[in-house]
Amino acid sequence: MRISELSRETGVPVATIKFYLREGLVPEGRRTSATQAQYDEEHVARLRLIRALVGPGGLSLALVHGVLEAIDQPPESIHDLLGVAAGAVERPAGRLVDHTRVHALMERWGWRIDNKDCSTHAALAEALQALDDAGFELPEGALDAYQQQMAAVAAVEIAGVPTDSAAAAVRYVVLGTVLVEPVLLTLRRMAQQEASAQRFG
Amino acid sequence: MRISELSRETGVPVATIKFYLREGLVPEGRRTSATQAQYDEEHVARLRLIRALVGPGGLSLALVHGVLEAIDQPPESIHDLLGVAAGAVERPAGRLVDHTRVHALMERWGWRIDNKDCSTHAALAEALQALDDAGFELPEGALDAYQQQMAAVAAVEIAGVPTDSAAAAVRYVVLGTVLVEPVLLTLRRMAQQEASAQRFG
Repeated sequence: MRISELSRETGVPVATIKFYLREGLVPEGRRTSATQAQYDEEHVARLRLIRALVGPGGLSLALVHGVLEAIDQPPESIHDLLGVAAGAVERPAGRLVDHTRVHALMERWGWRIDNKDCSTHAALAEALQALDDAGFELPEGALDAYQQQMAAVAAVEIAGVPTDSAAAAVRYVVLGTVLVEPVLLTLRRMAQQEASAQRFG
Repeated sequence: MRISELSRETGVPVATIKFYLREGLVPEGRRTSATQAQYDEEHVARLRLIRALVGPGGLSLALVHGVLEAIDQPPESIHDLLGVAAGAVERPAGRLVDHTRVHALMERWGWRIDNKDCSTHAALAEALQALDDAGFELPEGALDAYQQQMAAVAAVEIAGVPTDSAAAAVRYVVLGTVLVEPVLLTLRRMAQQEASAQRFG
C-alpha cells in the first residue's frame, strides 16, 4: 500500500509517518520510484504499536526508541529480556532514598533481593516515603494485602509470557506493563465505587 | 511559628508558601504586625498535604484546589463524599468511547451500573480500546483475575475509610487513591520480576 493508505489504515497522519521514518522508528518501505514506496502489514503493526505506546502508554519518543530496539534485537535469556523490557518502561526514581525498609519487606514476603536491579526498590521506597511525607497511614495489613494481590496478578501475567519468540515476549512485557496499568488502576477505582456503594450507599 | 520556621519545618520555600497563601490554598496565619504572621501545626499539615499532592501525586494546582475544597467543605453522605474525592483525582477520558463492553463486564461481575457516574466506565473502555489498538491480547482469564484482585484491594481500602470526620474521609480517599497508585504499580513490577526469576531465572 502507499503512504496515504497506510495513514488511512492506522489513523496516523502522513506527516507523522514521515517523521517516524526519518527517526528510524518505522522501517523504510519498498521503493517503487524516486518519490514513492510501498508499505505492508508489518508497517501497519509497527505504527499501531507506536501509537499505543505514545498515546495511552504515555511514553516519550526516546523511550519508544528503546522499546522498539529491545523488540528488534532481543537479548538471549528470557529473564534478561524481561528485565530490558521492564527497564525500558521504568519510571526513573526521583530521589535517593534508603532501600532498607523495602529490603525488609521483601524478606518478609520471601522475595529474592537482586542487588543488580534495585531501581524498583528505589521506586517503592519513594512511593512509601511519599505516604509518610503526606502523613498518610495505610490501614493495618494493607501493604501485605497489596503485595498478595499484585503477586497473584503477576503470576497470571508471567504464566502468559509467549516463549516461542523473543520479540513476542518483549512486546508482551512492554505492552502488558504499560497498557495494563490504566486497566488495573481504573478497575481499582470502579471496585472502590462498588465497595463504597455497598457500605455507605 | 514564623514563615521562615514553617518553611524549615516543611521543606517548602518561603516564596512558594507565599504563592500558596495568595492562591488561597493555605489559610492565612494569625497577624502579629503589618508584616508578620504566626503559623501553627495546621499550616504544617496543609503544606505537607499540598507537597504530597503536587509531587508524587502529580496533581495540577487546579486539581489540588478542588481536593482541598472537598476537604474543607465536605458533602453530607459519605458515599457522595467519596465520589467527590475520587472525581477530583480522576484522569479525564481522552476520547468518546462506547461503554457497552464495560457495562457487559460489570454485569458479569455483579457490579451495579450507576449511569450518573460513567466517567470511570469511559476510562476503562478507553484502556481496553488501547490494548485492542496495539493488537495486544490479554491472556485468557486475565481481565477477570484483575477484577478479582482489585475488588480485594478495594475491600480492604473501603473498610479503612475513617467515618468519624468527613475531612478525614476525603483526605483518606484522595491520598489513598493518588499516593497508593505508585505503590501498587511498583509492587506489580517487583512481583513480575520475582515470578520471572522463578520461571526463567
